[in-house]
This record gives sequence, C-alpha cells and structure tokens, in this order.
Amino acid sequence: MPKISEKGRLMPASPIRKLVPFAEDAKKRGTKIYHLNIGQPDIETPVVALDAIKNNTLKVIEYSHSAGNESYRKKLAGYYQKHHIDVDHTQIMITTGGSEALLIGLMTCLDPGDEVIIPEPFYANYNSFALTAGAKVIPVGSSIESGFALPPVEDFERLITNKTKAIIISNPGNPTGYLYSKEELLKLRDIVLKHDLYLFADEVYREFCYDGHSFYSAMQLEGLDQHVILIDSVSKRYSMCGARIGAMVCKNAEVMATALKFAQARLSPPTFGQIASEAAIETPDSYFSNVVKEYVQRRDVLVAGLNAIPGVFCPNPKGAFYAMAKLPIKDSDHFCQWLLESFQYNNETIMLAPATGFYSTPGLGKDEVRIGYVLQVEDLKKSVTILEKALEIYPFKK
Amino acid sequence: MPKISEKGRLMPASPIRKLVPFAEDAKKRGTKIYHLNIGQPDIETPVVALDAIKNNTLKVIEYSHSAGNESYRKKLAGYYQKHHIDVDHTQIMITTGGSEALLIGLMTCLDPGDEVIIPEPFYANYNSFALTAGAKVIPVGSSIESGFALPPVEDFERLITNKTKAIIISNPGNPTGYLYSKEELLKLRDIVLKHDLYLFADEVYREFCYDGHSFYSAMQLEGLDQHVILIDSVSKRYSMCGARIGAMVCKNAEVMATALKFAQARLSPPTFGQIASEAAIETPDSYFSNVVKEYVQRRDVLVAGLNAIPGVFCPNPKGAFYAMAKLPIKDSDHFCQWLLESFQYNNETIMLAPATGFYSTPGLGKDEVRIGYVLQVEDLKKSVTILEKALEIYPFKK
Repeated sequence: MPKISEKGRLMPASPIRKLVPFAEDAKKRGTKIYHLNIGQPDIETPVVALDAIKNNTLKVIEYSHSAGNESYRKKLAGYYQKHHIDVDHTQIMITTGGSEALLIGLMTCLDPGDEVIIPEPFYANYNSFALTAGAKVIPVGSSIESGFALPPVEDFERLITNKTKAIIISNPGNPTGYLYSKEELLKLRDIVLKHDLYLFADEVYREFCYDGHSFYSAMQLEGLDQHVILIDSVSKRYSMCGARIGAMVCKNAEVMATALKFAQARLSPPTFGQIASEAAIETPDSYFSNVVKEYVQRRDVLVAGLNAIPGVFCPNPKGAFYAMAKLPIKDSDHFCQWLLESFQYNNETIMLAPATGFYSTPGLGKDEVRIGYVLQVEDLKKSVTILEKALEIYPFKK
Repeated sequence: MPKISEKGRLMPASPIRKLVPFAEDAKKRGTKIYHLNIGQPDIETPVVALDAIKNNTLKVIEYSHSAGNESYRKKLAGYYQKHHIDVDHTQIMITTGGSEALLIGLMTCLDPGDEVIIPEPFYANYNSFALTAGAKVIPVGSSIESGFALPPVEDFERLITNKTKAIIISNPGNPTGYLYSKEELLKLRDIVLKHDLYLFADEVYREFCYDGHSFYSAMQLEGLDQHVILIDSVSKRYSMCGARIGAMVCKNAEVMATALKFAQARLSPPTFGQIASEAAIETPDSYFSNVVKEYVQRRDVLVAGLNAIPGVFCPNPKGAFYAMAKLPIKDSDHFCQWLLESFQYNNETIMLAPATGFYSTPGLGKDEVRIGYVLQVEDLKKSVTILEKALEIYPFKK
C-alpha cells in the first residue's frame, strides 16, 4: 500500500472536530447542546441574495471567468470604495471562499521553507494553508491580558529571518475579537516595508465593529500597494458561509497575474454563489445596523456573564463575534470534552472550542476557550449558567 | 517589492487563454467565432437540478459538512452502484469541482519531488495541480496514429523510478476522446500493483461513451482498493460546470481520512451546487441517451468532415466530446492565433485549442489541435468548411 504524503501526516485535525463524536453521543443521550463552538452565524441571509438564487433563469450552469464574473467584480469594487478601499475590478479576483483566496495568495507569494509570522492565537486553518504551501508558521505571541492587542514591534523584529516572507493578520480577529487600531496598523506597515514582506490581511469581519470603533483596512495603508493582499469573504458579512465566495484583492499586478494562473487551473468560482453575492451588494445598511445591534447585545450579556464567574476572565471584544475566555482549568481540550461526555445541567450542556487549536506554540491555550456568540441572548444566558455550574464541579481545576 | 514564488513563476498560462485577446479583437471587428476551443457543453442542465435551486427554501446559507452533505453522498453512492462502482458514502468526499478532488488527492498522496506519470497528451491542468503539490509530471507518449491508445507497458516501466508515486489517467480522455478498454486497464493494474503506486482515474466523462462501447472504471479493478483514487465531477455529466461540484472517491481509509483534513481547512463545498447535484441524481436516463445521440451525430459530422480535408487526420473518438486532429501546419499556436487575427471566411472564423498545451514534452503537438464538439451540427459543418478554407491559404504549412 503506497504511503500518504508528509504534508498529509502533518496536517492537523481540528480540535473542534475531535469533539464532534462526543457531541453526537450527548445528543443521542437526549442532552441539548448549545453550540458556542462554531463560526456559522444564525443570522438570516439577506433576502435580496436568497431571491436572486430563486429567480435565476439559467438554462446551462456554465463556468464563469476564472477571476469571477466581471459584473460582480465591478459592483464589488464599488462596495470597497464605500469602505475606503480604493480598488477597481481588475484588482479583485473572486475565489471559492476566503479559504481559497488565502491558499492561492500563499501559493503565489511563498516558496517551500519560507516563514510567515502570525500573531497568536490565530485562525487554525492559517496553519493548514501554510503547510499546504510548504511554508512555516512563526507565531508571535499576543496575550489575553491585553485583549490580544498587536504584539510589540520588537517581538516581530526578533522573529524575522531571511526566510520571512509574510505576515498574516485577521482584523477584526478570529478567534480574539480584537480590532486593530490605525496606530497598530501603521506599526505593522513599518515592519512590512522595512523587511519587504507581504501582508495578508484577513478582513472578513469588517462589518462587525462595535462601540463606535471604526474599521481601518490594511489596504488604506500608504506605500503598501505592492505588499498588501486582502483576503475577503461574503460568508460572515451576509451570513452565507455555504455560498463559498471570497475574494483576493491586491494592487500588485504581478501578484494578481500569478494568482490568476492558479485560479485558471481550478477553472472558476461557483456560479450560484456569485449570483447571490452580487445581489447581496444591494443589502440595505439597516441589515448591518440590526446585526451589529444584535451582536453587541449578545456580547454584552456573554462577557458580563463570563466575568461574573469566579476565576473566569474575558476581555471585551471590539469586533467579529467571538470572545476568548480564560478559565480556571488545566486543559481546555479535556474540559471541552468533559462538558459533552460527563456533564449536563437540567439535561443541557455547551460545546466550546478549546483554544489550543488557535495556538501553534505547544502548551499555550490550555486554560482558554473560544466562544462564538452566534446564539440568541436567552440561549447565551443559559450557556453562561451551564459553564458556571460546570466549573463548580469540574475536577481538574487550576 | 517582495518576489513572487517559484511555483507562481513556473505555473503555465493556458495556451487557450493566450488566444482570448485575439478572439476579443476579432469579435470587435464583427467576425463571428465558432468556439471549438472549449469544454463547456451547450447542452441544457437537467430541469430537476435547475428546479431544486429555484425551489430551495434556505433562510441561512450555512456551511455543509466538509465532506459534503451526507444525503447527497448517500444518493451518489447509489449512482456509483448503478455504474458498477461498489462504494458507500464514507468512501466519497464532495469537492469543489473535480479540480479540487485532484488537488486534494495529490496533496494527500504526493510529496514534493515525487513523480507522477501521465499518458500524453493530457488535460493541461494536471500539470498545474502537480506543480502546486510540488510533484513532477513525467509524460509517457501516446500517438494520434493509434488514436491515443494506452502506451505499451514497457514505456511506463522505462519511466518508473524510486520517485514515481502515481499515474494519472483521464478516461474517456480529455483531450483525446479515447476510451480505455478493460484490457488496457488490466495492464495498468499490473503496473500499479508491481510498483505500489496510486492510480488517479479522472472519469468525469463516464456517461459519454459511443458506438456501443461500455465504460469500465478503474474502481472495478480487483486488488486496487488501496491504490485507486477516482476523480469525478458533475460538470460535464449534467452540463453544470458552474456548480463547482466534484468528488474524490477512494476505498483507502487512510487516504480518505487525510484528504478530509485538507477539506476541513477549506471548510465545505458549495451549498447550492450540492443542492443541484443531489437533485440531478434523479435525471432520467432518457436525458443521457438524448445527449449521447446528439454527441455521436456531431462527432460523426465533425470527424468525417475533418478527414475529408487534404492533409488532415482525425482518429474517431469513442468517448467524451473532444477530437484531436493532425493538421498540415508547422505551429498550432501560430495557426490558432492566425485564425483569429488574420483570417475570416464569410466574416466567420473558428477558435481551436492548440495541442501544445496538452503535451508537456517540448515540441510535441505543434501539428495538432483539440476540437470540442460542443456546437450544433450545422455550426460544426460551417466550422469544418472554415478550417478547410483556412488551410488552403495558411502560409506556414508543412
């Protein structure tokens, strides 16, 4: 029997996925589970997008242009202009989700053995895509005590070698919910220019900024036109993760021409997802203000509830729909499994994401969990109570 | 400005894509172009699939399972059973087109530096995906004189080294239209077993077999359960290339578990495409018999017409909807460009795919073109006349 590849052996299985069988068993026992582990919003997709799919009149579902339908790219350029990102449709390539934008971007820019620095904790799949491209992730630590602010410039400088080719940021952050300030981004800009790096900016949570904080895009940084690669997606923005439509946006013509060659090999992004995404551009602003209001309400309930539990600390996230919480536990993987396997309160329990999956430094994240506030307020309240009750009796506390 | 990757520099731009600007210029001059260059069928998508999309009642377009919806995989297993491919839904992973199935399959099985043998000419993107995975394509020559039959076993043996990890076949073949016999596949089986290789079998044209020839799948080969990876797609079968739904099918549990880790990183295949594909399983058999009848009629007109042109040779394809033709020309890239740039007959011309893009051995394919018979019979007749007239005056003949 032939061997599988080394990359395949090294590719991590997600810590959340490992919990799925335990969740299934719990459901079989009749236990209700509040899913705080996921990034799938419960918010309804805008009606304009759903209607565009229902009303389509295609007779043949054809390939689109490899860079995506031009009509969509032109409207999307208008969307970016509205968000102070000055690009035209030739600087946009439509991809199969933000995932493919990042994979193609890394393939375009990084050689095997190259290093990419990522503030830690980070979205676990960054590691998977870097591994696929043969690149090595070098984590730079950020701490829950600072709410996961940008690590000091010196910490980046210490890690930069002649192999360093790029920095990846997620802003607002998954899993941290942290929103980088313009000042932090200007610091990043200096590092990127000084060392001639690419800056991959994953800004898929752009619309989800709270408490009056406004979003500042890496694409707005002056002097970085050749360096910044924006990773975008409609998944969270319009609550349509299953459309699998994202975008790679960049003003560097050589990067875009090279990325297009990778995109041509896979022919085209999904046709129906593009129809929905193009229509979604017309989503009224009121949709977003309602969604933001909803998320703020949920966050406030969740964060206050968590911080009221003895031994729990949860910094207040300024964006996205995740919160990281520090718990008085020794091993978050064990705790999250125990919640599903051995605990229930009034026949209910919660599913959380162990933070270990978001750290690449071994041993980190063992007393942290990620909580997605993608449930209704009443369910979040119940979830906080369940967590409190669980921590009261969990045997492996710190 | 940071450098792009070596893979990016090496990634070939498709020879067909290079022709697109010339086609656009011709259209601007008012010249009508018959597109024989493409693999996008003009056949209508089955109504059951289109209706499923129009009648969907989703409120939130959610991620699906990373391996695809279980309901779809179960129905698809039934489809395979009907085609004598004995698999269950756990041996099927739904992908974003056949393209992703091949990319994930190669990533799962091949290490950088590994070699993969492919009968030449072959679908150009095999090279792009191999390059993405860091693997090297080793072509084994097949000839137009034999209609592109499987090369002799000795030719494979001569090319096998300790770096050889896999063989890729396309059956029925793109670009050749050749349908491998059971006997040829048994020969391949022996090579694969003897050298402990993976066999990637791209069988996306399964339904398109002509003249009473029946399709024999690599998945039916005895003793190869741990070796064969079936690459499939709904693109051609149901004329829905834009759905971007394919499948990787394999009985090797380690391969499937590893492939799933790559699939989890990109989250899920497209939701709408899966809805259409699941519904398309109910496509009546009459749809396929009508399509096959149509393609046979087109092929017969095309092949007879081509072989009647002095100096042209076109073997009769037994499957898919492509024909390879040998022309009395020195350079097919030049000829195909000239057809668009400098030729018209009654204000019409044709766009062909130069065969050079399907050969990785430099210099091969210079007197061959690929012709897709994805046009109506009347248009194919006109196209053959245009080719004949063009060859009469083309200045760079052999």
